[in-house]
Amino acid sequence: MPRIAYVNGRYVALADAFVHIEDRGYQFADGVYEVCEVARGFIVDMPRHLGRLNRSLTELSIDWPVTRGVLPIIMREVVRRNHVTDGLVYLQVTRGVASRDFVFPAGTKPSLVVTARKADPAAATKRAESGIKVITVPENRWDRVDIKSVGLLPNVLAKQKAKESGAQEAWFVDADGIVKEGGSSNAWIITRDGVLVTRPAEHGILRGITRTTLFEVAAKLGLKIEERGFSVAEAKAAREVFISSATTIAMPIVAIDGAPVANGHPGSITLSLRQAFFDVAEKSPA
Amino acid sequence: MPRIAYVNGRYVALADAFVHIEDRGYQFADGVYEVCEVARGFIVDMPRHLGRLNRSLTELSIDWPVTRGVLPIIMREVVRRNHVTDGLVYLQVTRGVASRDFVFPAGTKPSLVVTARKADPAAATKRAESGIKVITVPENRWDRVDIKSVGLLPNVLAKQKAKESGAQEAWFVDADGIVKEGGSSNAWIITRDGVLVTRPAEHGILRGITRTTLFEVAAKLGLKIEERGFSVAEAKAAREVFISSATTIAMPIVAIDGAPVANGHPGSITLSLRQAFFDVAEKSPA
Repeated sequence: MPRIAYVNGRYVALADAFVHIEDRGYQFADGVYEVCEVARGFIVDMPRHLGRLNRSLTELSIDWPVTRGVLPIIMREVVRRNHVTDGLVYLQVTRGVASRDFVFPAGTKPSLVVTARKADPAAATKRAESGIKVITVPENRWDRVDIKSVGLLPNVLAKQKAKESGAQEAWFVDADGIVKEGGSSNAWIITRDGVLVTRPAEHGILRGITRTTLFEVAAKLGLKIEERGFSVAEAKAAREVFISSATTIAMPIVAIDGAPVANGHPGSITLSLRQAFFDVAEKSPA
Repeated sequence: MPRIAYVNGRYVALADAFVHIEDRGYQFADGVYEVCEVARGFIVDMPRHLGRLNRSLTELSIDWPVTRGVLPIIMREVVRRNHVTDGLVYLQVTRGVASRDFVFPAGTKPSLVVTARKADPAAATKRAESGIKVITVPENRWDRVDIKSVGLLPNVLAKQKAKESGAQEAWFVDADGIVKEGGSSNAWIITRDGVLVTRPAEHGILRGITRTTLFEVAAKLGLKIEERGFSVAEAKAAREVFISSATTIAMPIVAIDGAPVANGHPGSITLSLRQAFFDVAEKSPA
């Protein structure tokens, strides 16, 4: 069965899903995106993702391509047409198509692309039971990573470097040795006395939706959270380390730059957060 | 007559020029570009632009989409089919189309798009005779602006801010108050004793092709060049200020952040550099 994409008003076979070469997403990375998990037939935390989308669009003065009420309908339809029960739904909004010029074009309609794809939850569980590895790289991105823009080339290069090092994620580390975030995830540690630590999202990182929901999961589990930066050294000496994102939920980190975290196996608190996540998250029927 | 674009092996009407939604240029800004001036029927400094393209591709481990010998043929053909005697030719290479994943896909063929458009040389001359205005903005881009990537959102935002301030370019200024470069140009001043000053291109800026050729133009005119950084204050007090790019050549700056440069009119040395440029530049018949 061919996959279906939504592109600017039409549902088309993925193979026929095209945008114009002068779409500003293609020429300027002038656009933003969101990825929502689909789990057990629900789109997870969709309102929060749409709230963040609204913030990204506002920061860039890009109009909504469809009304905020219509976008969930399109997302559900794309999920439905692709028969996704577990997987993800991806959406991208750009400033639209215009003759190439840096400044905002007048009267251009924003572009909207929505895709969905399946993922195997059993494979994700297996990955979580083994844990994954991270490397650290110097922060080299622009200052506005709080905007979820498609300008992801630094993230591509960092994650490629991770892959070449036998790891699955790269952490951007600032000049003071403090971990910022991963190439496509937020970073967390759990201290020896069981406190969750993650960097404040006021500045310098993207405010992860899964990160936000994990605050509620932690509260439900009676876990304390400190919002503060932590160093690579502190992470290496932590009880547990994990990353969070819509597609990884809470994913244990078992090695940092080749050095094992704790005993080199996923930590029990991380796995309990992961386990409890789905119940706490907001679930919109797909 | 409809404009024609080259897209991945085919010459098509611009209205029909599309790329796939999973082109990594669209989803990750995972691509690079070049813009060459077309003047009096010649593509200007094409070998240097292709040399820089090669460097950008190499830095990102993207293969050439066609051989280096074939690309000039395509560029000439696009210029010819669009009847461009004066204007520009634009090319963009991305890592190609692949299911969305940050790491480099295996076996993906890079995408190539080439477009051309006319510009009115009389209008450019008129602009140069009036001069243009710049504003300054804090440097907020990533560290690898030496790669000419399509990740141009910070440049878009800076140039939009310039426009909203009644200016035509924005200079990125580092934390020490030293000018880096413009949103789409290099920055120059001419001191009271007639010395050209521009920032070294070793780090932190893009090595402009027009900038490089202007070194030769300056030598021909017997002008001295110092490659060093200059502050905004020094620029405001300079004899002349200008920017350089393939589409602006040497373009006089007559105001910085609303304050006039010198007497508020284009400087004579800048105009003589502009005048002499075409003769010195390498000209490939289009």
